[in-house]
Amino acid sequence: MLGHMPVSHCTKDIQRKINFSNFLNQPTSSPANTFTELQSLMAPDDKAGDSVEPAKPKTLLRVRACFLKGVSYFSGDMKVYGQWMESLILQNYWWALNGFVGTLFATISALILQQNRGAIAAGLYGYNGILVGLLMAVFSSAGAWYWWLLLPNIFMSMMCPVVSSALASINSRWDLPVFTLPFNILVCLHMVATGYYNPYFPQVNIQPRSAMPNITWAQLDVAKLFMSVPVGIGQVYGCDNPWTGGIFIISLFISSPITCAHAVIGSAVGMVSGLALAAPFGDIYFGLWGYNCVLACIAIGGMFYALTWQVHLLAITCAFFCAYLSSAIANIMSRFGLPACTWPFCLSALTFLLLTTETNKIFKLPLAKVTYPEKNLRFFWKLKKKEKMEKAEKERKEVEEQKKIIKETMILNEQEKRVLERMEEGREESERSEGNDDETHGEDHAPGVQQQHTANTPVEVTVADYV
Amino acid sequence: MLGHMPVSHCTKDIQRKINFSNFLNQPTSSPANTFTELQSLMAPDDKAGDSVEPAKPKTLLRVRACFLKGVSYFSGDMKVYGQWMESLILQNYWWALNGFVGTLFATISALILQQNRGAIAAGLYGYNGILVGLLMAVFSSAGAWYWWLLLPNIFMSMMCPVVSSALASINSRWDLPVFTLPFNILVCLHMVATGYYNPYFPQVNIQPRSAMPNITWAQLDVAKLFMSVPVGIGQVYGCDNPWTGGIFIISLFISSPITCAHAVIGSAVGMVSGLALAAPFGDIYFGLWGYNCVLACIAIGGMFYALTWQVHLLAITCAFFCAYLSSAIANIMSRFGLPACTWPFCLSALTFLLLTTETNKIFKLPLAKVTYPEKNLRFFWKLKKKEKMEKAEKERKEVEEQKKIIKETMILNEQEKRVLERMEEGREESERSEGNDDETHGEDHAPGVQQQHTANTPVEVTVADYV
Amino acid sequence: MLGHMPVSHCTKDIQRKINFSNFLNQPTSSPANTFTELQSLMAPDDKAGDSVEPAKPKTLLRVRACFLKGVSYFSGDMKVYGQWMESLILQNYWWALNGFVGTLFATISALILQQNRGAIAAGLYGYNGILVGLLMAVFSSAGAWYWWLLLPNIFMSMMCPVVSSALASINSRWDLPVFTLPFNILVCLHMVATGYYNPYFPQVNIQPRSAMPNITWAQLDVAKLFMSVPVGIGQVYGCDNPWTGGIFIISLFISSPITCAHAVIGSAVGMVSGLALAAPFGDIYFGLWGYNCVLACIAIGGMFYALTWQVHLLAITCAFFCAYLSSAIANIMSRFGLPACTWPFCLSALTFLLLTTETNKIFKLPLAKVTYPEKNLRFFWKLKKKEKMEKAEKERKEVEEQKKIIKETMILNEQEKRVLERMEEGREESERSEGNDDETHGEDHAPGVQQQHTANTPVEVTVADYV
Repeated sequence: MLGHMPVSHCTKDIQRKINFSNFLNQPTSSPANTFTELQSLMAPDDKAGDSVEPAKPKTLLRVRACFLKGVSYFSGDMKVYGQWMESLILQNYWWALNGFVGTLFATISALILQQNRGAIAAGLYGYNGILVGLLMAVFSSAGAWYWWLLLPNIFMSMMCPVVSSALASINSRWDLPVFTLPFNILVCLHMVATGYYNPYFPQVNIQPRSAMPNITWAQLDVAKLFMSVPVGIGQVYGCDNPWTGGIFIISLFISSPITCAHAVIGSAVGMVSGLALAAPFGDIYFGLWGYNCVLACIAIGGMFYALTWQVHLLAITCAFFCAYLSSAIANIMSRFGLPACTWPFCLSALTFLLLTTETNKIFKLPLAKVTYPEKNLRFFWKLKKKEKMEKAEKERKEVEEQKKIIKETMILNEQEKRVLERMEEGREESERSEGNDDETHGEDHAPGVQQQHTANTPVEVTVADYV
Repeated sequence: MLGHMPVSHCTKDIQRKINFSNFLNQPTSSPANTFTELQSLMAPDDKAGDSVEPAKPKTLLRVRACFLKGVSYFSGDMKVYGQWMESLILQNYWWALNGFVGTLFATISALILQQNRGAIAAGLYGYNGILVGLLMAVFSSAGAWYWWLLLPNIFMSMMCPVVSSALASINSRWDLPVFTLPFNILVCLHMVATGYYNPYFPQVNIQPRSAMPNITWAQLDVAKLFMSVPVGIGQVYGCDNPWTGGIFIISLFISSPITCAHAVIGSAVGMVSGLALAAPFGDIYFGLWGYNCVLACIAIGGMFYALTWQVHLLAITCAFFCAYLSSAIANIMSRFGLPACTWPFCLSALTFLLLTTETNKIFKLPLAKVTYPEKNLRFFWKLKKKEKMEKAEKERKEVEEQKKIIKETMILNEQEKRVLERMEEGREESERSEGNDDETHGEDHAPGVQQQHTANTPVEVTVADYV
Repeated sequence: MLGHMPVSHCTKDIQRKINFSNFLNQPTSSPANTFTELQSLMAPDDKAGDSVEPAKPKTLLRVRACFLKGVSYFSGDMKVYGQWMESLILQNYWWALNGFVGTLFATISALILQQNRGAIAAGLYGYNGILVGLLMAVFSSAGAWYWWLLLPNIFMSMMCPVVSSALASINSRWDLPVFTLPFNILVCLHMVATGYYNPYFPQVNIQPRSAMPNITWAQLDVAKLFMSVPVGIGQVYGCDNPWTGGIFIISLFISSPITCAHAVIGSAVGMVSGLALAAPFGDIYFGLWGYNCVLACIAIGGMFYALTWQVHLLAITCAFFCAYLSSAIANIMSRFGLPACTWPFCLSALTFLLLTTETNKIFKLPLAKVTYPEKNLRFFWKLKKKEKMEKAEKERKEVEEQKKIIKETMILNEQEKRVLERMEEGREESERSEGNDDETHGEDHAPGVQQQHTANTPVEVTVADYV
């Protein structure tokens, strides 16, 4: 069943992670002042208010939820989704409702359009739907329980399978996944079509950055900076608490150590890039420079390429490139009042997946074979082993063949030698005893053997050639 | 002759319609204040002035022209073009001249570049040329009879076949038409290269919307709202009069009922979307939310897909998506002083044409076979019938084959039975008459027949298997 | 070795030229006031200062360097690179250092990623690297010897092979080169990611043009206007001195007259377009409207197409289109604080290379066969000659075949005639001598021959048909 959904199944794992790159980080991936604005806009609503309130009661709920999640992680990664949904529901029922509506209608739409059943079952279509539903609620400045929002939400999530399918038609030519591009496109489309001034569907007013705060390195809090690494990973799942991030790291380590390592590296790279490109410290502490880099680093580091040392270095480079892109895209898109979403991740990962090299150390997996890093690696090793064995087999056969030929040649030479010797003897004998007929019989026999052999020789050689 | 112009002929019909999506609607597809600005900029010119003046004398001329058009429509859709040219000429000689120059030089350029003769004859190249020429005149704020404008006009219309051919090289990989993309690209290129401040080729100053008028639903004029549906269709042909739109609807109904239905639906969808996205009522009444949706709905609903219920729903979805895109594109492009042109139609239709599904109810016609909805439908039914017949034929043969096998098996069983009976009889007889040789001959004969049959049996079965 | 690098080798020549499209022109391809700003920003640095100072001491150095270059040009075009590096180093050590670092790390990165050795040796990767390094230094407003700049410089130049390879994966589907797109993308990425306000990596503040200076044609200096043609060519190599440009023209004429002619035409076209689109005279005199057009005209005029009259006209059209695009792209990109770089050249050349026609007069060379115009032409002629010979051979064979058939038919007719005559004679004879049997034998023989021939005839004709 999973065999014939090349574009879909492949991205299941990575996308389950991206799934979570949502509700708190995107707004603030744009300049920091936007986020406070978002918070203030969300504040009047009492239900949403307590979830966005500074971290005291929320943290407790979260830590509990995340601890449970950490424990439940052992039994496979499908449960994480449920856990996360649960934690999300605890945080903001309205957002959760929108996410649910998004998932539901994206799946219904995929069923109506008769997309691949396997892909639907794997949650691939509902997946972009939940992101669309959730983020449309997050970026709406109309406050929670503004029921009219469900209308564009339903429409946009129903558009998900259409846009996914259209993009897949293009990307499949290069054997590339669509990642979260449908979500990025549809959320940006909705936001730019309405704008912050829209009376029905007002958006958060994201404004372009035109000046930088003075950065005084003396103010740098090294502890917070180190904590930003787990926070960056937590932000992928929507949590800004370092302990939560820590639990995520442990969970990831248990389920897939390679993914875990690359997540940590990606987050650290994002943090370093933020410092290097003079981002406000607040943004860095908050993990906003991390989440895209975490995703990009995971995608390249073992997910779509088989992990080798070369691929590992490539993944780190991709994380740096993604950090650069994050800054550039946030600057450009904020001109149009748009957040960066996960565009930087999508674009940087696609660029690195289009790369072609002459080395076999950078092996891009066929899209239909992509699962998770460890399994990918096994597939790669198997393939390599098979190739090696085939090569060895081929070499062995060649060697054997050559040995056989040498042996045969030697036997022939030997026989020829013997025959010649016998002939020599026979001649001598015949020279010695010209009259006795009995011995002539033996003499007659020897040439017969020789003839028989000279007749056989070419046949055997020919057979050897054909084997 | 029409066989070898895959990209061209297909779009003939749809593009003839788009042809008209021109002279009054684009400027105002940007915010409403722009349009009044355009009108005031056009006003000093006396020839153009009377055509843009509020609707009294113009309406008379138009209604007359459109009535004539409605009458002449019966004799085929090629005459519409002439009629429209005529009405256009009555409205504004200067615009008509520019449109003519555009057509002429685009065709000359296509001839020089030796593009497909059939496509040239079908007016495909001249087609984008007329749009380029016309719109460059419409968006120029230098006033009518500014002869220098003919220079960029000639150049840009000569670029049409180049850009068309380049785009077709890309789009043909996905069997997609180029629609009016060359026109969109070239007009936007000219406008952004010069700008409203250019001393030689000044453009209409299209400014981004940054605030919304207060919408009071009490002010909504329901009659005007209902009238906006025919107006939206009329705007595709450049007419903002509801009666004209009505005549167009009747004409469309006569020439192609499917196209007519989708035009009405598209216009209604655009109107509803405008209301839903809080557009100023004036824009909606004026049909500005309609024309892109009309085109997109026609393109998907029967033009490039064979019409089924599923495709019909898809066309409606596409119209909604197009309305969303119109708003988004108008917002972004107005930042650069650009109108939305027909970008929303092109992008939404291309997205929906890239869609792939597993159902055979959504059948995309090969680009070379695209004509008009009714003919497409006949092609689709023929194809389906053929498939059905082939399937039935195959099934019939299989059934016959099976019948034959059953019959043969039955015959064999019968023969075997008979032979066994005879053997039984023979045995009995031989038991009865041991001495008489004559009857033993009959006994001898029977096993011979049986042997013959047991020898034949496997052969016949084998033959049955191979058929 | 050069056989298997389709994307790479082809662009060697053109890119060596683009190589030089760098250090003075890009900043000023944006509005003129930006350039003075750049100069003032560069001024505080004493080393760079003397090189940007108005043209007195610089000119002497340059003319000397360029004269040497002109002389050294005879021995092949690889030396030009060295000469240019030298002149560059004389101008600004800091820029030269950045260019060198860019080349070095781009090459190292290409080696690590195991890109095609032939392409690396041909300087293809280092090539985009030098542009990235150089331009990042040029557009930095941090002043010279700001060592931290080397960090993003190294990173971005190491990204060059990645982006080149990714773009080549896409472009190779249409057999298109990547031109300087990696350079354009990476420099714009760096600039937009940091911005003019960045405290660590501040960029030159490029501002959008919103008003035009009053252009009074009386002020037009015709001498300067004519001089702008060589200046435009010189700007490709980074020199704004007309004499230098003149020497370049002579050098180009010696190495490749076709390239030279198209460079002059391109520069003239750019100048004319600048006048037509109301550019400030200063920009035109300074050659800013020329360099992109020069490159585009060279690329189309004989480099990627085999030169014919049709292609020559196409190259001129492409130069005009490129001038238009330059203005449009500069206007749009300046909104984001970005320079136009060589985007206009890349986009216009790619558009014209995507063109497909039905004439064999516009022959696009396979990417692997692209070298320089004269050699391309020889390849084209050879191909044409071969085709002609093959055609002639085929025709000759056909003619021979037909001759053979005619001959055979004639022989047959002759035989038939002879037989008929003989029959006639035989009949007459038989009429004459009814009784003598001997002659009847002859009569019997003749019909036999005839029968034999009537039997043979169709067979021979059939054979002739099949040959």
